[in-house]
Amino acid sequence: MPPEVLILSARAADYARLLAAMPLPPLALHAAATSDEAEPWLASCEVVLADPPLVRPLLDRMAALRWLQSTYAGVETLTAPGLRRDYLLTNARGVFGELMAEYVLGYVIMHERRGWQRFLAQRAGRWDATWPGRLRGKTLGLVGVGSIGAEIARTAKCFRLRVLGYTRASEDCPHVDRYFHGDALVDMAAACDYLVASLPNTPASRHLIDRAVLAALPAHALLVNVGRGSTVDEEALVEALQTGRIAGAVLDVFQTEPLPADHPLWKLPNVLITSHTSALSYPEDIAPLFAENLQRYISGQELHYHVDFARGY
Amino acid sequence: MPPEVLILSARAADYARLLAAMPLPPLALHAAATSDEAEPWLASCEVVLADPPLVRPLLDRMAALRWLQSTYAGVETLTAPGLRRDYLLTNARGVFGELMAEYVLGYVIMHERRGWQRFLAQRAGRWDATWPGRLRGKTLGLVGVGSIGAEIARTAKCFRLRVLGYTRASEDCPHVDRYFHGDALVDMAAACDYLVASLPNTPASRHLIDRAVLAALPAHALLVNVGRGSTVDEEALVEALQTGRIAGAVLDVFQTEPLPADHPLWKLPNVLITSHTSALSYPEDIAPLFAENLQRYISGQELHYHVDFARGY
Repeated sequence: MPPEVLILSARAADYARLLAAMPLPPLALHAAATSDEAEPWLASCEVVLADPPLVRPLLDRMAALRWLQSTYAGVETLTAPGLRRDYLLTNARGVFGELMAEYVLGYVIMHERRGWQRFLAQRAGRWDATWPGRLRGKTLGLVGVGSIGAEIARTAKCFRLRVLGYTRASEDCPHVDRYFHGDALVDMAAACDYLVASLPNTPASRHLIDRAVLAALPAHALLVNVGRGSTVDEEALVEALQTGRIAGAVLDVFQTEPLPADHPLWKLPNVLITSHTSALSYPEDIAPLFAENLQRYISGQELHYHVDFARGY
Repeated sequence: MPPEVLILSARAADYARLLAAMPLPPLALHAAATSDEAEPWLASCEVVLADPPLVRPLLDRMAALRWLQSTYAGVETLTAPGLRRDYLLTNARGVFGELMAEYVLGYVIMHERRGWQRFLAQRAGRWDATWPGRLRGKTLGLVGVGSIGAEIARTAKCFRLRVLGYTRASEDCPHVDRYFHGDALVDMAAACDYLVASLPNTPASRHLIDRAVLAALPAHALLVNVGRGSTVDEEALVEALQTGRIAGAVLDVFQTEPLPADHPLWKLPNVLITSHTSALSYPEDIAPLFAENLQRYISGQELHYHVDFARGY
């Protein structure tokens, strides 16, 4: 009997189309874009490919669930305390680094080039020939050097940036010039023109970028957060930005999303808000990854991208 | 007798400071930021390091001039018909590619990411989670593959773009996947997501990007011009942008600069204007290049970056 597979994603139709075109073993495949659409298959599905926020409220009703493949990298919705952990959870990895690297380098360049100031000058019909900044000689510090950080490092090296990396212990990315661990995040921050966080939401990453780290950054520094909002002490960040303690921030993620309408970050002139779009899960990236894991599942091999519920990633 | 050297540049003080810190033979070095300041040395200077627009009106009074090193890459101000040609002219090369590559990739990424739309959404306090585009699978076509085009090609390859190149005849950049020559610019344009011009202002480049080339571009294509305004038929471009024939343009250079206040390009919503700042002449880049040429001049060696007055570059 082929396993019963439920696709539960806002982009379910795209996933169904992409998977149908792949050479997979026979499957009972059901596609649902909403919980209502998923209703008929909740009790019987053994394998689920799902957007975490969509699947979470339905978890307890999936009696036959053995394996859940998340379409997202971040699975804190599913590893939160109190939720069931009696199934295999895998997330998406290795496909977001490229998108994140485009985002980080694009925004860092625009920061140097004063792209937004020039854009406003244009709207005022003003020829703004002020000198732009440049990447030469600058230092980019990565808070977290997983597969995403490593791809940002590789791309930063193409622009000849110096790259620093803060990790728990690992030192295996060849594009990082110098590593920092433990209490040394403040030391790394002090040496950075750009500080880029790409950490998942875990107990260990919570408020890692705190008042002390923000205080250690040079006044011209730019903070970029493409990981999770919880990494940054938002109150301390607002203060650092309001007082000009740092030059600016490019923020894709926030403590609360969507960012509440009355949040002070909306109105700060040195903040760019990109509404959690830095690296979305494109079905054309995720479907092949799921298909490979599905082959492994069916043939009894160990799955890729296994998530440790306790660690949270 | 050491040669008498005049620095005539808006950034003359920076040049004087940088050159003073270099191990050069004894020199009679004069720094002037304006023509008035240059007055005492006009007749006697043998070597001139100058911003072309500043030096042009003074050329005829430089009786002892033997070599002029331009601080700019573009020297059409000095090669125009009717001006004296009885001296060695060298321009700045090899230092602009890096800046141009930052510019081109930064703006191409922002185009895909809808950076300006998101910026405006933020000002309206709106969480804009629309899906961004990405570079994967895209094609960038270079009109001109000199030292600048080659560096843009190298950087584009870091982002895994397909790179096409239109040149007169040369095919020596290893980062170009396919070359086009002669009448084939329209064929290249038809295959491009981004068309990037980096040509000098010469008779051969005038209106190379004309109505036919713009018509050949796909509707979603972006035109980027970091070379000279004369390369593009501006009237045809305005029409292509007004009618949505192409998606947009990022323009650093124009037929007339500063762009006249009543020019239609100012008001088009799919145009970004960057006021000829894509690659300025940073004294820290130009001073070493001049110093090396100066050593060669003094020791009687051939100079680097010799400009052919007839060809214009």
